[in-house]
Amino acid sequence: MAAAKLKDVAEFAGVSIKTVSNVVRGVPGVSDATRERVLRAVRELGYRPNPSARRLRTGHSGLIGLAVPELTTPYFAELAHHVRAEAAGLGFTVLIEETLADATEELRLATGVGASLLDGVILSPLRVSPDELAPVASEFPLVLLGERSYGHDRVVADHVLIDNVAAARDATAHLAGLGRTRIAALGVDRKASDTSRQRLQGFQLALHEAGLTFDPRLAPLIENFSRHSGLLATRALAALPAGERPDAVFCFTDMLALGARRALYEAGLRVPEDVAVIGVDGSEEALYATPSLSSVIPDKAAIASLAVTCLVNRIRSKEPLPFEVHLAPYRLDARESTVGPA
Amino acid sequence: MAAAKLKDVAEFAGVSIKTVSNVVRGVPGVSDATRERVLRAVRELGYRPNPSARRLRTGHSGLIGLAVPELTTPYFAELAHHVRAEAAGLGFTVLIEETLADATEELRLATGVGASLLDGVILSPLRVSPDELAPVASEFPLVLLGERSYGHDRVVADHVLIDNVAAARDATAHLAGLGRTRIAALGVDRKASDTSRQRLQGFQLALHEAGLTFDPRLAPLIENFSRHSGLLATRALAALPAGERPDAVFCFTDMLALGARRALYEAGLRVPEDVAVIGVDGSEEALYATPSLSSVIPDKAAIASLAVTCLVNRIRSKEPLPFEVHLAPYRLDARESTVGPA
Repeated sequence: MAAAKLKDVAEFAGVSIKTVSNVVRGVPGVSDATRERVLRAVRELGYRPNPSARRLRTGHSGLIGLAVPELTTPYFAELAHHVRAEAAGLGFTVLIEETLADATEELRLATGVGASLLDGVILSPLRVSPDELAPVASEFPLVLLGERSYGHDRVVADHVLIDNVAAARDATAHLAGLGRTRIAALGVDRKASDTSRQRLQGFQLALHEAGLTFDPRLAPLIENFSRHSGLLATRALAALPAGERPDAVFCFTDMLALGARRALYEAGLRVPEDVAVIGVDGSEEALYATPSLSSVIPDKAAIASLAVTCLVNRIRSKEPLPFEVHLAPYRLDARESTVGPA
Repeated sequence: MAAAKLKDVAEFAGVSIKTVSNVVRGVPGVSDATRERVLRAVRELGYRPNPSARRLRTGHSGLIGLAVPELTTPYFAELAHHVRAEAAGLGFTVLIEETLADATEELRLATGVGASLLDGVILSPLRVSPDELAPVASEFPLVLLGERSYGHDRVVADHVLIDNVAAARDATAHLAGLGRTRIAALGVDRKASDTSRQRLQGFQLALHEAGLTFDPRLAPLIENFSRHSGLLATRALAALPAGERPDAVFCFTDMLALGARRALYEAGLRVPEDVAVIGVDGSEEALYATPSLSSVIPDKAAIASLAVTCLVNRIRSKEPLPFEVHLAPYRLDARESTVGPA
């Protein structure tokens, strides 16, 4: 018996080919009853979609890649969730990859070689250099996410990010506005990553505007943006003599803030009475912390929408498109860890 | 110019075809210098791997699917992380999908129709029925994860899980062993899911063994296993008169426990002095909570290893294999939320 085709499934289920295609690709907007009828037909006929055939027919496989440093960071898990929803709406399936912040792995995934039939890739890079990415982006649909700078001198690929200098300035100004004067910055990493440099720049700008001086002892070097790094660095800050200890900490990520909060708890320091804490990312974990953690919240749904739309435009365009930088919105949510109980 | 082949890349880079194949698929064990040489050759020659060709050659695409309810639940993000590492070691790339706990979506993904070239699927089901899965598993390599029962009467697919009745019994016995007598169970869901039923069974068994009676008011119905459900249910428990209020809560997931801890914080109740709290899952979030949350911790690396090995055996086997049920180990980590500060 010849392999079942989309047309056979449509006839068996008594629906249009377009409907079968939507069900098989998981596109929303099909009623439950219809979906079940189509899936029954798929099973009965042993239908298996063939992306090679689809590619021959449409020139596309319908698969895009999303490469993030790691899924165990809630920010990236939430982002992946939004990217999948956005892509499904446009008829694309997302292949999620982890780079583990390895430059070679980032480059391998950006080149699309990990995943064969990919039409394009959304990459959140941490280590790979602009020079390495430039030749890739000129040949293969690629959208970059996050703060890694690829555009100060020249734009080498489409890029979606928030204004990190402004976000860090807002967070620090929030602490200064509460009367805090010894504000620490937690997130200056040994590798001087772009995220780290931009957020430090916004931090210093806000200190200057508030008439505060920058004390380098309150901006310790950290290993990475994890809870564990936040814990270790804050233990050291909490051990400073009372007059030198910070009365507020601006953490460059929520993970660092959660580690900082844990270290303050262990040291018997009250949040926010003794030390106010604010992070960046808007993770659900920060909302449920005790006290709830203030955070600067990038609009993840907007980031996902901008990135997927941008990538799909590039995939579908018959001509080369100019590279674009898109700024996504963010907001500051002041919670118990800076302003105390409601 | 004809499309570059694996052989051309190997010649250009001066390495074996096997090495190129390992680099392209992300298999560990290749030196950084060699990986960079191979990736340079891949770029120079514009090589793109072709899974259809690979499938013709080997009969496999090298892609397996992992379908979990949602990535924003840390347990599933951590599991996905382990599954990816395990699969890469065996030369497989993982396509991660979210089912959003929708039965039709679970069935669609189990059938492998979402992702075309998949060799097999690892599915963590919540809603799809055994009767619906049975015909799928007989035709397509499928491994199930988690507590959904598919094997009381008959085993319909390979299945990896922990002994949930025993895990719940251990958690409850831990609370009873600390002298707690009014122990609540948080996780009885409206849909009477298998996870819920098995953990309630272990809970009731431990109560009985400790000579405590079961008070149905201390086992409220919840919507799902989220932080939010834990928050709402525990607010109601905390509002009970002092004599009727629980002095301990066994939460069926860490997410519920984090919501419960937040509700107790809002109510001004101390953990563990007034109410002890324990969860299940071993999320990193529980470790950094204040106080740190005790948890029953499934061995996620073992679960990933068992599931991937089992799936790959089935993919590679030329004959039908009998379905198997694999029990993964777990351990109880007693932390501040039950035993107080160290």
